[in-house]
Amino acid sequence: MAAFSFNKLVIFGVGLIGGSLARALRERAGLAGRIVGVGRSAASVARALELGVIDEAAALDDDTALARVLEGADIVLLAAPVAQSGPLLARIAPFLDARTVVTDAGSTKSDVVAAAREALGARVAQFVPAHPIAGRESSGVDAALPDLYVERNVVLCPLAENTADDIARIAAMWRATGACVREMSEAQHDRVFASVSHLPHVLSFALVDQILDSPDAELKFSFAAGGFRDFTRIAASSPEMWRDVCLANRAALLAELDDYAAVLARFRAAIDASDGAALEAAFARSRVARKAWQERGAITPPGDSAAK
Amino acid sequence: MAAFSFNKLVIFGVGLIGGSLARALRERAGLAGRIVGVGRSAASVARALELGVIDEAAALDDDTALARVLEGADIVLLAAPVAQSGPLLARIAPFLDARTVVTDAGSTKSDVVAAAREALGARVAQFVPAHPIAGRESSGVDAALPDLYVERNVVLCPLAENTADDIARIAAMWRATGACVREMSEAQHDRVFASVSHLPHVLSFALVDQILDSPDAELKFSFAAGGFRDFTRIAASSPEMWRDVCLANRAALLAELDDYAAVLARFRAAIDASDGAALEAAFARSRVARKAWQERGAITPPGDSAAK
Repeated sequence: MAAFSFNKLVIFGVGLIGGSLARALRERAGLAGRIVGVGRSAASVARALELGVIDEAAALDDDTALARVLEGADIVLLAAPVAQSGPLLARIAPFLDARTVVTDAGSTKSDVVAAAREALGARVAQFVPAHPIAGRESSGVDAALPDLYVERNVVLCPLAENTADDIARIAAMWRATGACVREMSEAQHDRVFASVSHLPHVLSFALVDQILDSPDAELKFSFAAGGFRDFTRIAASSPEMWRDVCLANRAALLAELDDYAAVLARFRAAIDASDGAALEAAFARSRVARKAWQERGAITPPGDSAAK
Repeated sequence: MAAFSFNKLVIFGVGLIGGSLARALRERAGLAGRIVGVGRSAASVARALELGVIDEAAALDDDTALARVLEGADIVLLAAPVAQSGPLLARIAPFLDARTVVTDAGSTKSDVVAAAREALGARVAQFVPAHPIAGRESSGVDAALPDLYVERNVVLCPLAENTADDIARIAAMWRATGACVREMSEAQHDRVFASVSHLPHVLSFALVDQILDSPDAELKFSFAAGGFRDFTRIAASSPEMWRDVCLANRAALLAELDDYAAVLARFRAAIDASDGAALEAAFARSRVARKAWQERGAITPPGDSAAK
């Protein structure tokens, strides 16, 4: 595993994710490189500067400042909401040093890669897509932690155009935060997270929606207990964020929704036919898998594995 | 609220539910009436006798014993698995005193009422269907607790044939355990629990089933995190129990499944059309309702309310 160091890291959007990377590299890995934060305005990154999370703040709309901070940058991290990836890359492109490696932290990847190809053209070779699987209930740079990424997965979705050196460099940066780096294609990434994260959120929102539209809604809520509580915990998530995820990962999510509807139709047929054996067999294998998953732990053990 | 007392209570199936009622009436309410436990054999209720939860044990297959224990019984409680309700009532019928009130503790009601009508004929007037909403992870009489029902809901589903006195008597018995008694029709009961309990279990089993059948199953499980964990906690539930619930509450569950499929189809159409406004509006109202439910608490406050 190559040791990691950097001379200049530029972070676009210094909130929980970008701020935690900065703190991890400085406080956990003890690295001395310069860290620059760029916000819509200098004021929006002033708090990060005040907290000492970054060494310098720059405003996105200032050509001179942008040219100066991007000159000689080793790494650029996009840590703003996913929908801003395309506009940000278009803004960066004219000032992008040929030796800089650009990466991101978006929770969907196919849409970000498409936006990067459009914004960067042939220079998309400099863009190594990534997704750190970490978060907290609170957001903003005040919530940033130096150990947010310890033993968390970071997925890299390298492009065919990326050089092995650039991929290794981004992997080394994330490993320096304590994360486990794994690789998969952007399509595979989007399928995996559509299945285990995006779909359950939609299903949970849908159950509450269904009850709200039923004539007995109040009565039902008054008798809802532990099963309902666990099942719908994620229905209290941010509507804006999940709207964006659904749209950004539309194709993969639609495929998962269709697969799920087919499973439900199969279960429905077994219930309709009073086929107890089929129901018990299906429930039993789900139970075994769920218990095995719980015992393995939700967190992948430290150590890197390239996912197939 | 009428004070409750009894001379003789006969419990068929002295496990967690039946044993907790016996302990609550004796230890919590301080009532002195005789409590008889009936099992498939005298041995199966020997443990309840040994623990002092019941005063006398009888075997179901012993006509003489059954006639003796049912003579002069104020109340009979069926606390065996729901599927045994019909056979048990048929077994009890020849020995049933005209002044005895029979009740049950089954988690589905329409099927139990149908079985009671068949087994008891005109004497179904003596049967007051009930469902205490309480449980523990462990089962059996050793797990029985005197306070299992404190501030828990007990749903009564009175029949048109029941007398007001008999209904009041069963309500008073449950109130003596500390429970909140609520009334609804058996059809309404089955719809409510199909919606807030049975359907979420099926949906949770279905998500794990879907992942198991996908080519990327291992990869998906390895990236599943907190949302998946909460959503699928109930997929570790007993396959046998949930098979029985699905079959016993088949009609109501099928109706809920169809409603849910329609909600999912609506969400799918919004995602397919990239209709962010519709998605955000649906997610936002679900979130508001889920948070309001959480703040009210899952448990209905003490005090009785007849549900409409």
